[in-house]
Amino acid sequence: MTAARENLSRLKSLIRTIPDFPKAGIMFRDVSTLFKDPWGMQTTIDELVRLYEGAKIEQVIAIESRGFILGGALAARLKCGLVMARKKGKLPGKVEEIYYDLEYGKDCIQIHSDAIKKGERCLVVDDLLATGGTCGATCELVERFAGVVVGSAFVVNLPELGGAKRLAKYQPQWLVDFDGH
Amino acid sequence: MTAARENLSRLKSLIRTIPDFPKAGIMFRDVSTLFKDPWGMQTTIDELVRLYEGAKIEQVIAIESRGFILGGALAARLKCGLVMARKKGKLPGKVEEIYYDLEYGKDCIQIHSDAIKKGERCLVVDDLLATGGTCGATCELVERFAGVVVGSAFVVNLPELGGAKRLAKYQPQWLVDFDGH
Repeated sequence: MTAARENLSRLKSLIRTIPDFPKAGIMFRDVSTLFKDPWGMQTTIDELVRLYEGAKIEQVIAIESRGFILGGALAARLKCGLVMARKKGKLPGKVEEIYYDLEYGKDCIQIHSDAIKKGERCLVVDDLLATGGTCGATCELVERFAGVVVGSAFVVNLPELGGAKRLAKYQPQWLVDFDGH
Repeated sequence: MTAARENLSRLKSLIRTIPDFPKAGIMFRDVSTLFKDPWGMQTTIDELVRLYEGAKIEQVIAIESRGFILGGALAARLKCGLVMARKKGKLPGKVEEIYYDLEYGKDCIQIHSDAIKKGERCLVVDDLLATGGTCGATCELVERFAGVVVGSAFVVNLPELGGAKRLAKYQPQWLVDFDGH
């Protein structure tokens, strides 16, 4: 096992699984136990930074809410700006928004209208890649600003939900996979 | 003007004020314009890190939601863990909680029951210090875990709302003051 692989396997062991949250049948992959571990938090960030060090990222686009934690950490280490992608009604200024389909109903992501400049190199960040619905919508919204989505970064991927395929054009990368939903 | 003072005055100029958000009469101090500016984001973190470099922080306690951004960035730079302080119902595991008074009604902050060890040195982080209600409650909750609140850190303070006095025992520090509410 290489050093990197050993790190990733230890990171995975720090993520707790909580059955039936937020509803019956969902195995919730809880990164809070990873973040509270100083080695886990630092190594998570180190491994993500390693993926984007040469990528000249200008804005980290952080998806509410756990994506804010990773986004803040990545922006601090990549020396770039940070833009919030928030649920409807949370941002105080003029916004652009995008609606996207959920299993039942629709959801909405908003970004401030003056947040992303034309041609700016953006990295979209969230804690977990499931179906890719929220991240895909966020990437589309970034492109409406004529921002360039250089990639999308996650701690956890759930391969069975197909998000990585759906997001292929936004080059998703992640640290650990979990089976099941 | 010293270099640090010049930085702080430039940081302040990057914070946008939005009148009447979230309700009439509130002057909302919007740090999103500070965070999207790469110099602003980096300098904000640099100046906060400078305040706690020697303080041996073991856990950053980040208050939902904008506090997650600063908390992630500080944890990445101070090389410590991060614990989320969230609104009711958002954390998936067993929680400790504290209710606190708002102008009208009550609010609640929760932290995972296994998140903070006895004697752990904690820094509580949020973007803005207003009345200090949320941060004060979070600090009390940390103390219920027998955690040590080494300090509380903010970008913006609103002196007229008296939060700094109310939080005095938790040694609040911040980068810029704004008059008014």
